[in-house]
Amino acid sequence: MAIPGRPASRSGDRFRVHYRIRGPEAEALATARDICLEQTVEIPASLVPPGDVADQIVGRIEGFESTSSGHFRATISYASECAGAEITQLLNVIFGNYSLKPGVQVEGLDLPEPVLQTSVGPRFGQSGLRALLGVTDRPLLATALKPLGLSTTALADLAYRLALGGIDVIKDDHGLANQPFAPFPERVERCVEAVARANRQTGGQSIYVPNVTAPGDLTLQRARFAARAGAGGLLVSPGLAGLGALTQLAADEQIARPILSHPAFLGSFVTCPENGIAPGVLFGQIVRLAGADATIYPNYGGRFSFRPDDCRAIVVGATAPLGMLKPIFPMPGGGMSLDRVAEMLDFYGSEVILLIGGALQAAGPDLVATARRLRQMVDERFG
Amino acid sequence: MAIPGRPASRSGDRFRVHYRIRGPEAEALATARDICLEQTVEIPASLVPPGDVADQIVGRIEGFESTSSGHFRATISYASECAGAEITQLLNVIFGNYSLKPGVQVEGLDLPEPVLQTSVGPRFGQSGLRALLGVTDRPLLATALKPLGLSTTALADLAYRLALGGIDVIKDDHGLANQPFAPFPERVERCVEAVARANRQTGGQSIYVPNVTAPGDLTLQRARFAARAGAGGLLVSPGLAGLGALTQLAADEQIARPILSHPAFLGSFVTCPENGIAPGVLFGQIVRLAGADATIYPNYGGRFSFRPDDCRAIVVGATAPLGMLKPIFPMPGGGMSLDRVAEMLDFYGSEVILLIGGALQAAGPDLVATARRLRQMVDERFG
Repeated sequence: MAIPGRPASRSGDRFRVHYRIRGPEAEALATARDICLEQTVEIPASLVPPGDVADQIVGRIEGFESTSSGHFRATISYASECAGAEITQLLNVIFGNYSLKPGVQVEGLDLPEPVLQTSVGPRFGQSGLRALLGVTDRPLLATALKPLGLSTTALADLAYRLALGGIDVIKDDHGLANQPFAPFPERVERCVEAVARANRQTGGQSIYVPNVTAPGDLTLQRARFAARAGAGGLLVSPGLAGLGALTQLAADEQIARPILSHPAFLGSFVTCPENGIAPGVLFGQIVRLAGADATIYPNYGGRFSFRPDDCRAIVVGATAPLGMLKPIFPMPGGGMSLDRVAEMLDFYGSEVILLIGGALQAAGPDLVATARRLRQMVDERFG
Repeated sequence: MAIPGRPASRSGDRFRVHYRIRGPEAEALATARDICLEQTVEIPASLVPPGDVADQIVGRIEGFESTSSGHFRATISYASECAGAEITQLLNVIFGNYSLKPGVQVEGLDLPEPVLQTSVGPRFGQSGLRALLGVTDRPLLATALKPLGLSTTALADLAYRLALGGIDVIKDDHGLANQPFAPFPERVERCVEAVARANRQTGGQSIYVPNVTAPGDLTLQRARFAARAGAGGLLVSPGLAGLGALTQLAADEQIARPILSHPAFLGSFVTCPENGIAPGVLFGQIVRLAGADATIYPNYGGRFSFRPDDCRAIVVGATAPLGMLKPIFPMPGGGMSLDRVAEMLDFYGSEVILLIGGALQAAGPDLVATARRLRQMVDERFG
């Protein structure tokens, strides 16, 4: 459908958001026009001052088409300067107020270079993380220290045995914060030491990745502490700490560690297909733009309800060309069993971090042997 | 339904979350049991170590009952120590991973004193904000500086005229960040000056409230800058900055300004009734716990789809007794017109901040006269 009265767009100075809007058509088009106002000037069209505000600031419908039964895709562009070179305001323009209105989903982003520069992007990306871990081409293996409630000593012992078994990335469970049973500073120091001890025995380069998610600038402080203590990476839940916290950690020269993004408290964006943000956009493009080097999300067929298509879309968002931003690792998890490793390798290929948590503990008391068995399955396939 | 094998709960050391779960009954009960594990230990029940982890850390079903056709309410308690005295981890326990699973909504929180102490709570609350503004008993009036794209000079002029007209709280539109057309530092200084100038003429105590939402610890830095520059309060969108950022601003002695919480980018929690967090919990209890002194949300009947019941629930969450936490102001907005002021006053009574944005500009070119007319409507009713 042609949109009358649309001024020509100057190339490169606007970014585009694709919205999936519930119909019928006339209503969906009215919604698209409302998005143009609501996400920018927040006043009725009749009150928009002529000149730059009307011509540049108000969102602009660049395309509007029927997609599937009862839905329409509106492509709306915004002036890059509206985002003010900050990811918080970029997200606000994309979906701030409209998150409150049912029937609209963000299903795609086209971000030109000026907007991509709202973030330094992933510092390591796939290649940097591989170099750090000394793993050239096989899939990477990750696990989580759990359950919540274990003492620091017990967690450090788990970390030691998992590293001894050849797991590359040993991360805190995302529920480990700064609780009395395993306070953050001592947990970090002890687990760093435990993994280093295992590395000395194996000659490996496993890393311990503590969870630094915390209120306000405590996230930054914990990340700097962890970096000084020798942690090999950092785990952050941007749904709790804010996506801007991720950006700041990625840019911080004192930290300079790979960052794993955890999806906790972000799920409501993706549980209702009529609303929210499509999984590939949120857990792929946005998390990558924010600076994560790997994006954790629930694999299809596990404890959660993601479908294979959702997972494929996340892989695309995490890895497809996106300006100068490095491709990052998809890191599927959430109830993966050892029986499913072969299938996951078929599905994801080598550019993946398999996150296998409870299943390693479920396979029997000899955790080192179980970890070695998992590592062997991967080595044989990609050796 | 009785839950067999449940140990007695020690009073005060656990907090309770009420989840609304889609049925049928056997599935809903299985979901409730799954929540107990997923939100804490994240391993199957068979792997949970006996002792404290099994007895205290794993969530505990305290109640399970049918509520409405096809739905059940499960009340689950968690050990307060799981929250680690931090709001980020408290929210993680309440809904971190389960946000990713459809069919479950957080519909209530019972937070005992140890958990309420994860936050200092609102520093001002209703009474503190009234004292600051010198308004004893009438509803407070607020508006937003908009549209996005105006220069600092134009925004400061708006602020001046709105304060001259007797609007108590003149806040940045939540889309004003640090864009080139109105950079944060000069905007804050000029708008503070403009409102102070109007106050000198009127003898009033209007405040200017800049938006400090930004990535990472920039939020804290902007808030401190604004406090030093004489801003009367701060606007934060915790969906973008993180709810923990709100907590930190409320606790900061250098800031010590009332905080308005904006709902941008939080809408996906509330747009799908089968999932997410009930509006009264999110925009009432949680935002209050995080330290906001007023909670902005879309009023019923405006541009958004909130119902009167949602708004009533937010008022209850914002004001009902909650340990030592002060009651805070509901601040409904979002497409309110002057015609609806009488109805809003009927609905909310005097303990409200009416947020009227575009409608003030829509009523005609003489903004001072429009603002005075609004103020007069309220003064006459509550004078």
